[in-house]
Amino acid sequence: MWRDLAAIGRDAGTGGYRRYAWTPADTDCRAWFRDQARARGLVCETDRNGNQWAWRGDPAAGDAVVTGSHLDSVPDGGAFDGPLGVVSAFAALDELRARGVEPTRPLAVVNFGDEEGARFGVACTGSRLSAGKLTPEAARRLRDADGVSLAHAMEHAGQDPEALGPDPARLSRVGAFVELHVEQGRALADTPHPVGVASAIWPHGRWRFDFHGEANHAGTTRLADRHDPMLTYARTVLAARTEAAAAGALATFGKIAVDPGGVNAIASRVRAWLDSRAPDEKTLDALVGAVRDAAAEHGRGEGVRVEVARESFTPVVDFAHDLRDRIAARLDGAPVLPTGAGHDAGILADAVPTAMLFVRNPTGVSHSPAERATEDDCLAGVGALADVLEDLACR
Amino acid sequence: MWRDLAAIGRDAGTGGYRRYAWTPADTDCRAWFRDQARARGLVCETDRNGNQWAWRGDPAAGDAVVTGSHLDSVPDGGAFDGPLGVVSAFAALDELRARGVEPTRPLAVVNFGDEEGARFGVACTGSRLSAGKLTPEAARRLRDADGVSLAHAMEHAGQDPEALGPDPARLSRVGAFVELHVEQGRALADTPHPVGVASAIWPHGRWRFDFHGEANHAGTTRLADRHDPMLTYARTVLAARTEAAAAGALATFGKIAVDPGGVNAIASRVRAWLDSRAPDEKTLDALVGAVRDAAAEHGRGEGVRVEVARESFTPVVDFAHDLRDRIAARLDGAPVLPTGAGHDAGILADAVPTAMLFVRNPTGVSHSPAERATEDDCLAGVGALADVLEDLACR
Repeated sequence: MWRDLAAIGRDAGTGGYRRYAWTPADTDCRAWFRDQARARGLVCETDRNGNQWAWRGDPAAGDAVVTGSHLDSVPDGGAFDGPLGVVSAFAALDELRARGVEPTRPLAVVNFGDEEGARFGVACTGSRLSAGKLTPEAARRLRDADGVSLAHAMEHAGQDPEALGPDPARLSRVGAFVELHVEQGRALADTPHPVGVASAIWPHGRWRFDFHGEANHAGTTRLADRHDPMLTYARTVLAARTEAAAAGALATFGKIAVDPGGVNAIASRVRAWLDSRAPDEKTLDALVGAVRDAAAEHGRGEGVRVEVARESFTPVVDFAHDLRDRIAARLDGAPVLPTGAGHDAGILADAVPTAMLFVRNPTGVSHSPAERATEDDCLAGVGALADVLEDLACR
Repeated sequence: MWRDLAAIGRDAGTGGYRRYAWTPADTDCRAWFRDQARARGLVCETDRNGNQWAWRGDPAAGDAVVTGSHLDSVPDGGAFDGPLGVVSAFAALDELRARGVEPTRPLAVVNFGDEEGARFGVACTGSRLSAGKLTPEAARRLRDADGVSLAHAMEHAGQDPEALGPDPARLSRVGAFVELHVEQGRALADTPHPVGVASAIWPHGRWRFDFHGEANHAGTTRLADRHDPMLTYARTVLAARTEAAAAGALATFGKIAVDPGGVNAIASRVRAWLDSRAPDEKTLDALVGAVRDAAAEHGRGEGVRVEVARESFTPVVDFAHDLRDRIAARLDGAPVLPTGAGHDAGILADAVPTAMLFVRNPTGVSHSPAERATEDDCLAGVGALADVLEDLACR
């Protein structure tokens, strides 16, 4: 099962995955999901927002226990972020069969569409649409770097973009959603526990910084006559690191676009994106405000105008305490820990009782071809997920 | 004449020019050149390296006086850098006719191909090939951002890439080359002189800096666990500015490429290009060495490995003193000044007696849609060029 999936959308040069929403790699992943469902006699359906569901039992019975994650990736992502949750979900269903336990509630495996937002810029597009947190009009208008709209890309992949929209009826049938995910940090690495339980997701967001300077010739313009936005950008990168360290939070610039982008041209504009996350919203607001102020201040000294726009924001997610505590108890006191990463589980958490399991990551590396988990820990994750499903759905 | 050319390759959004070598915009510029030559009864030819020549008189007679510049542009370049020299060359020939003076030496207007190197990364490709400073094999292998080779692009534009190569016979017929260019700085702006004469071109080059870090998830990786090459890059940008200011030189980062380039991913690699220029080679070497050392030092502190490769280098060009002094005297004591910008004149200077005229630029802005010169100053430039041609070719 793992081997069939491992080849899809992998770049031979970097070893990283490039599984972007509504591309051929994504279509191949979806076909893999259908094959896995069929092989187990599960009923497979794709909802109006492109999320795939594989059912054991009658969905209409309600109060279903659902598990799964996503199959898409960031640019040159790792093999585990997303797929581990889907593969483990199928494997946990196999484990329940092997144990001979019979579900008393409907069970489903889910593959949420476009979780990473790598192509169209909005993370968790599939779950956001279903939960009514992204309007279908806004979603259809999203465009990728080549100017292709999400509506066009969906249509090209054989999915109807006019069908997009909130799906409260479907979500109301879900009694609990449990997402298993590789840990994206090192909190478990120094413990004896291969599996942890999520307490909360830090509030997080993306801010676009536009540094407007003046294009000029790099070979003839005196330093004193320059309004070089690259300098202001550089000072802002360093300010973001300093402010994040002081706040016990995270701030990252990982994407940048320079106009005109010639080697011998002083930039007219640097556009860069800040990703920032903190334990609470007050800290996050203060951190981003401080970075914005530092950018403006440096810009004033260099004749560079700075504009900042918030592109997305996700409030803190506190997972359902009773479900979390029940799972932690079932897993013999597995560590309970917060994460800075957004997940479909976070999007659904206020509509559906939701929990997350994390599988230990020895290096903490994620969103990279070097991302990994040991086979033993992955199997421990499957066992833990099976325990949780048995506890929730088979009693 | 100016109006016909002004529309070609102009982006309606930015108002800047995008005339890159061997694109349709370049082909249109070349057709304009042929039309101008024909309208004046000049004999037009394109040499083996794609440079266009328009002859008045018999080239085979030798000791020709040649003037001109280039028609291609940087990304979103201005209207004057290059075209002003070609337009002024045709206008100066018209002026000689109007004055009723008769050339005693052959005269030619030249349009050198691919001066800016905006598409294939090597500046002055046409003149470099003719002067034997770029091998045809290396030129044919150059590729643009889409992976199209120069050989393929030339062929597509109807020029034979197999013909590329040194052209000593053609250059030996040139007794003097005078290039008129808009000034790319403000040295003339504060003087009463609309036209200046070049003394020298500063040595200059391009260095590629690769900052190798470790890709990771921006939302979950503790600051202490990061090897973020964006931080080292930012410190290097600031070090370059500081070192350049201390050396009385120039250093600019205007182009950058980030892998993987996701908003929520710490970069695995930042690749950035340093453009640097100084009054002499010793100063330039010391400056680039200091930037390289600063990058390596910061990189060590952040677990980021830095590689530096020199991509191009042009030694100092000291224009022929006798020609320069003769021109300055003819122009009633026009200021004599150095420049940091490379030009085809600099490439040819050790093969042919070469000089340059600069037309005043009120803001000094260049390589930008805001680049300009007043109409009066442009006309003064044409008059000065006609004076020089009359002095050199009609006595």
